[in-house]
Amino acid sequence: MKDHRLQNGEVGALEEEEGDGQHENGHGSAVVLGVDGGTTSTVCVCMPLLPFSDRDLPDTLPVLARAVAGCSNHNSVGETASNNTIEQVMAEALCKSGSTWSAVRAVCLGVSGVNHPTDQERILQWLRDILPSHVKLFVHNDALAALASGTMGKLHGCVLIAGTGCISYGFSKDGREARAAGAGPVLGDWGSGYGIAAQALTAVVKAHDGRGPQTMLTDSILKALSLSSPDELIGWTYADPSWARIAALVPEVVSCAEAGDEIANKVLDDAVQELALSVRAVVQRLRLCGEDGNGSFPIVMVGGVLEANKSWDIGKEVINCIRKYYPGAYPIRPKVEPAVGAALLAWNFLEKESERHYNS
Amino acid sequence: MKDHRLQNGEVGALEEEEGDGQHENGHGSAVVLGVDGGTTSTVCVCMPLLPFSDRDLPDTLPVLARAVAGCSNHNSVGETASNNTIEQVMAEALCKSGSTWSAVRAVCLGVSGVNHPTDQERILQWLRDILPSHVKLFVHNDALAALASGTMGKLHGCVLIAGTGCISYGFSKDGREARAAGAGPVLGDWGSGYGIAAQALTAVVKAHDGRGPQTMLTDSILKALSLSSPDELIGWTYADPSWARIAALVPEVVSCAEAGDEIANKVLDDAVQELALSVRAVVQRLRLCGEDGNGSFPIVMVGGVLEANKSWDIGKEVINCIRKYYPGAYPIRPKVEPAVGAALLAWNFLEKESERHYNS
Repeated sequence: MKDHRLQNGEVGALEEEEGDGQHENGHGSAVVLGVDGGTTSTVCVCMPLLPFSDRDLPDTLPVLARAVAGCSNHNSVGETASNNTIEQVMAEALCKSGSTWSAVRAVCLGVSGVNHPTDQERILQWLRDILPSHVKLFVHNDALAALASGTMGKLHGCVLIAGTGCISYGFSKDGREARAAGAGPVLGDWGSGYGIAAQALTAVVKAHDGRGPQTMLTDSILKALSLSSPDELIGWTYADPSWARIAALVPEVVSCAEAGDEIANKVLDDAVQELALSVRAVVQRLRLCGEDGNGSFPIVMVGGVLEANKSWDIGKEVINCIRKYYPGAYPIRPKVEPAVGAALLAWNFLEKESERHYNS
Repeated sequence: MKDHRLQNGEVGALEEEEGDGQHENGHGSAVVLGVDGGTTSTVCVCMPLLPFSDRDLPDTLPVLARAVAGCSNHNSVGETASNNTIEQVMAEALCKSGSTWSAVRAVCLGVSGVNHPTDQERILQWLRDILPSHVKLFVHNDALAALASGTMGKLHGCVLIAGTGCISYGFSKDGREARAAGAGPVLGDWGSGYGIAAQALTAVVKAHDGRGPQTMLTDSILKALSLSSPDELIGWTYADPSWARIAALVPEVVSCAEAGDEIANKVLDDAVQELALSVRAVVQRLRLCGEDGNGSFPIVMVGGVLEANKSWDIGKEVINCIRKYYPGAYPIRPKVEPAVGAALLAWNFLEKESERHYNS
């Protein structure tokens, strides 16, 4: 499953020219890098540094280059592999843009698996060691980049990411932040793509050994994996610990649910409840809905699990569920990808630093 | 958590002599090896080959030597590590007993993670490569060894193992077999020690981020792990993928439940239901309860999760739950460990081979 769709026309246009080698960038023009580090893939975009005075963003954002690599969640692949992936994807984006590190003013990393100040500090320390000292560094959870991709850099509202993993993250106007879920599959992320697929696999095993009702999921999943018996699912599951490999079965669950399978419908219903609960926990703690509960706030919806399907639309069901409690919640499906959100944040942070410098 | 208690006095007596080096074994006397390969530890016992005619086993079984090593579930540690552990534990038991491979008539392996004929065949092939050709080899799931440890070698009834992992396995008098659960933590083994602990950890994370009620589990688990905040649980959980490390938190869950914590009680209640369901699935498929449902059959109870605690006795609750459906079910808590069960199976299989040979 892909976590985020490529939705920025400019990037596509540039990517078509990949064969030409490096792109011209009026060598020396200041740029920023935005990195979206997910559990499935890692994306880096290189964007020019827009003038700070220009608060109204252009309709189409100018992305100079884009590079893609694998997983950079250190909880999934370990710290060394995660660091290597991030270093490689930044170097590739920079190279494609025709820029060099001397032109980079700031890097903003939004990385899945950054859950604690010590995670943030460890990555910052590593970046300081490998990057030139003039580059400003900002490291956050990938949820922040995803939020910014929906709000075009404004840090207000809640973002719900549901791809291989899931997390709900919010920022209030007065700068407080809160999160719910995002603790990985062992710690109850049942609304994630991994969670949905693991519940479906469990239903197949239970139907097979007599603990649960028969389900269409059995034929559908065995066919998708080219296996002949549910007994083989155990070996398949533990042969490779990658979370994305399990999560890739979500389309089978959605198809079975759309075909009327009760078990598949229950798995998706449960996931909707889990996802809605994680958003409600964040909204409640930050009072994003205002004191009367009716205030307006955005919910940025990101990730493959929340994309519209034929008839079973998980994202729409989650929003319906949340609006029962908070009628002022309005969904945003971002027009740019989270890596662009990360680059917008880099601008944002640089601007604030510049304001602080000017005011001091 | 330990999966199986040492309950054979003879073994303890021999172990005290470990410092002496090898034991005398009237060199050349025929022996068998029984191996219980679990997700937490692997045990091998070396026992003398009792005369086939002697169907009444002595009160105290003569264990010549016993050796212990780590995990041998290939799904948890990989095939190479699993094979190395099994090879090492057999060599150590043989060495301690003062025997050599030339004296070994048969080896019976009961290994956790053997779920499919291809698993069995792969292990058999590997054993044939490393052991002398005269040694008879029997490879099964560890559940079979555990059943035999309760029934003293008779293959009839159901065994429920709940340690780090869990599985329900049954044999009917006419030689049919069935299993339920035992598919590992990703595939819904929620009654296992790992499952119980993962649910408890999830409850702590949910209480912390506002998705669930406060629970005593938070203080209890953080204290047990020397952590200062639930945020640190994520890093702790994914720092080491060993299932046994998670399962080791079960005593904290039981303590909180005994102290009246509602969440901890719900986690244990759910585990009881899952374990009872897995036994019922096996009993139903094999009709161990007879056609009228009232027939008598043993349920062998093995593993740390089923051991009696102060007031919360998971094993007793499981039996109560099963007896509502099958009043003829009677629990057996084995007096010997599963590795001895594996050795008894080796005798049993050798005897059957000898009978077949005699009859042909």
